[in-house]
Amino acid sequence: MSLLIHNVRLDGNPTDIRIDRNRFTRIAPGQDEPADTVIDGAGFAILPTFHNGHTHAAMTLLRGYADDMDLETWLNRHIWPLESKLREEDVYNGARLACAEMIRSGTTFFNDMYWHPHGTARAADAMGLRADISAVFIDFHDPDKADEERRNNDALLRAADRYPDRIRITLGPHAVYTVSEASLRWAAEVSESRACDIHIHLAETEEECRNAQESFGCSPVAHLDRNGVLGPRTVAAHVNWVDEKEMDLLAERGVRVAHNPASNMKLASGSFPYADLAGRGIKVCLGTDGASSNNNLDMGETMKLAALHAKLRYRDPTVLGAEEVFELATGGAANLFARESGRIREGMLADAMLVNLGHPRLNPGYNLISDMVYAADSSCIDTVICDGRILMRGGVIEGEEEIVAKARESRDYLLGRP
Amino acid sequence: MSLLIHNVRLDGNPTDIRIDRNRFTRIAPGQDEPADTVIDGAGFAILPTFHNGHTHAAMTLLRGYADDMDLETWLNRHIWPLESKLREEDVYNGARLACAEMIRSGTTFFNDMYWHPHGTARAADAMGLRADISAVFIDFHDPDKADEERRNNDALLRAADRYPDRIRITLGPHAVYTVSEASLRWAAEVSESRACDIHIHLAETEEECRNAQESFGCSPVAHLDRNGVLGPRTVAAHVNWVDEKEMDLLAERGVRVAHNPASNMKLASGSFPYADLAGRGIKVCLGTDGASSNNNLDMGETMKLAALHAKLRYRDPTVLGAEEVFELATGGAANLFARESGRIREGMLADAMLVNLGHPRLNPGYNLISDMVYAADSSCIDTVICDGRILMRGGVIEGEEEIVAKARESRDYLLGRP
Repeated sequence: MSLLIHNVRLDGNPTDIRIDRNRFTRIAPGQDEPADTVIDGAGFAILPTFHNGHTHAAMTLLRGYADDMDLETWLNRHIWPLESKLREEDVYNGARLACAEMIRSGTTFFNDMYWHPHGTARAADAMGLRADISAVFIDFHDPDKADEERRNNDALLRAADRYPDRIRITLGPHAVYTVSEASLRWAAEVSESRACDIHIHLAETEEECRNAQESFGCSPVAHLDRNGVLGPRTVAAHVNWVDEKEMDLLAERGVRVAHNPASNMKLASGSFPYADLAGRGIKVCLGTDGASSNNNLDMGETMKLAALHAKLRYRDPTVLGAEEVFELATGGAANLFARESGRIREGMLADAMLVNLGHPRLNPGYNLISDMVYAADSSCIDTVICDGRILMRGGVIEGEEEIVAKARESRDYLLGRP
Repeated sequence: MSLLIHNVRLDGNPTDIRIDRNRFTRIAPGQDEPADTVIDGAGFAILPTFHNGHTHAAMTLLRGYADDMDLETWLNRHIWPLESKLREEDVYNGARLACAEMIRSGTTFFNDMYWHPHGTARAADAMGLRADISAVFIDFHDPDKADEERRNNDALLRAADRYPDRIRITLGPHAVYTVSEASLRWAAEVSESRACDIHIHLAETEEECRNAQESFGCSPVAHLDRNGVLGPRTVAAHVNWVDEKEMDLLAERGVRVAHNPASNMKLASGSFPYADLAGRGIKVCLGTDGASSNNNLDMGETMKLAALHAKLRYRDPTVLGAEEVFELATGGAANLFARESGRIREGMLADAMLVNLGHPRLNPGYNLISDMVYAADSSCIDTVICDGRILMRGGVIEGEEEIVAKARESRDYLLGRP
């Protein structure tokens, strides 16, 4: 399988880009070797795709079901009762809807934590995306529940070879308030012995930190450190409520951090200390969180929100500029997740998007990266390629109608409609 | 001219909608009277369009030209030097690009303040939009400059009948730091005698307030009040830095306020006190500000930013929910600007958008207003109608290529390229 994109703009200059199987093999103008598929890139620029650092893809099924509530009402009265009814097929249906939405907005990788993870993994596989996938591990400090969750997670890790290289299985201990110390230690050991990542929520709300002080006599960060979870294999989502010492510790341990600006704002959970974390050399990526707390999976919008939030928080318009935030969402994130995607470069995995340079929002066109961060939306994206395969062309994703219909079937089932 | 939209969803139910000339004349299912144009609305919902409460449309010409800088560097070294070269044709070109972008994102009204206002008015006229248009009135406290600006503004007001009813001319004294007291009083008198609105920047940055204290011995709000500018004819943009007493005064005077969340965050200028103003019964609308400080004119994104910002500012996820912010951007704003648009209702002016209910972001579809505020982007919008005329159909705006090409010509001229 080979793909040749003729006459596309890369860093402002027209060139030809050849993909063989799943890698960029030649980037140079004037290529005329035949290829299985040829795309006329005139009028388009090629850019790396987005990498979504934290989400719960199948929560698209709950998009718009409950909004504008306090966290406790939202979770206990609305989200959890509906989630308890989910079957693997629903998660598959919801995750496929999520993948369609992510493809439309230029995302080819997502880091997921959710129920029925095989549903999400099958969806990512079918839709052609890359993903790190974990089960939600919650034991509510109950030893029997903990045993069951460990068995489930063991089985999931053993089933990892069911999926192509694009899809990796990780561990998803939910958070310090939902996972026992014994299970945290178990996760740390398994992560070490199996060389797999840990994906966890950390210091998202002030209440989480207050409760940790009451329950454990220390902060969530210190609690994870005591139980061996703070290390370079861990990706911590949110990390809004951390003091100087805790940030130093996160840096020292090599923890990676996923920032979710829309979710943090919509749930009023906290204000991410980007400059303090990045200034310590901590690797930061961006995430959308689930569609029930955002309510989309648009990494373009997430870039803008991250930049805008950081400027307001630090009262400094120079913080987190366009180039920096674009890197966080593309090449930087790919590197953070140890993926060979995120750059348009010979030898790299062939993930890319083509954006329409004739779109009003990308004009009059002084600086494409600024325009992508601050002005664009998904309507500027024409074509998306992942692993050498075209997932969207001319704004069309094959089979999208059926994907939407299946998501609606799952919605009707969840609502108990006939 | 008549238009019939068959079988479109309105508030969840399928109906037929007839437009004669520029008003909705009949909203009821089963209509079969012939019409000049018939649209099949199956699979679409009809919604009111957005009203952009504060912008400088032609600043699209500067989109992405200078970002991520402090306000002074940005204005003095980048924006103003380029703006000083603008000709009316450039403003026309930039405003047409802005109109194309606004139509794409469902906006049919904008409240503008800029140089060469006839360029903007001609563009709004040609593109079929509604607009309130003012010249930037800046005299830098120089009496000669003030005379010149008053003559210019007088001439503009006298030329108002050059344009259709869709377009109104207003007064645009820029701000307390750029306009002399004599000119503020002049604007207040002309506004009264000619029954035209005043559009002004107010309390945007902390520095503006500090400088007002030094120069006038009072706040910008008190300064405007002393000079007769605070009244129901005034629309004040930004209003971030106001204390309790000033908010009481704004409420008492019936001043209307335009909130610009993206600009306030991108320039780190301040945090809008939405709940405090709205709680006093002050009429609030939303604006994008100019494309050089946003950098788009997308009111859908602006709704989401306004809601998210308010929740974080007040640390309360229940503040400014989806229905409320949608109303601010549509019917509420139309009312604020004394326009008979903003509602899909018999007798109202026929402005509307059709959104694609099969779009992944509007699914699985529990609550369309929540989905429009939190999940949608402009790619969900298929058709836009203003004043009974179809401005976009199937995502296509006639003549868009030429509009983009002209904006690029103006860019090249501004940059001094041959």
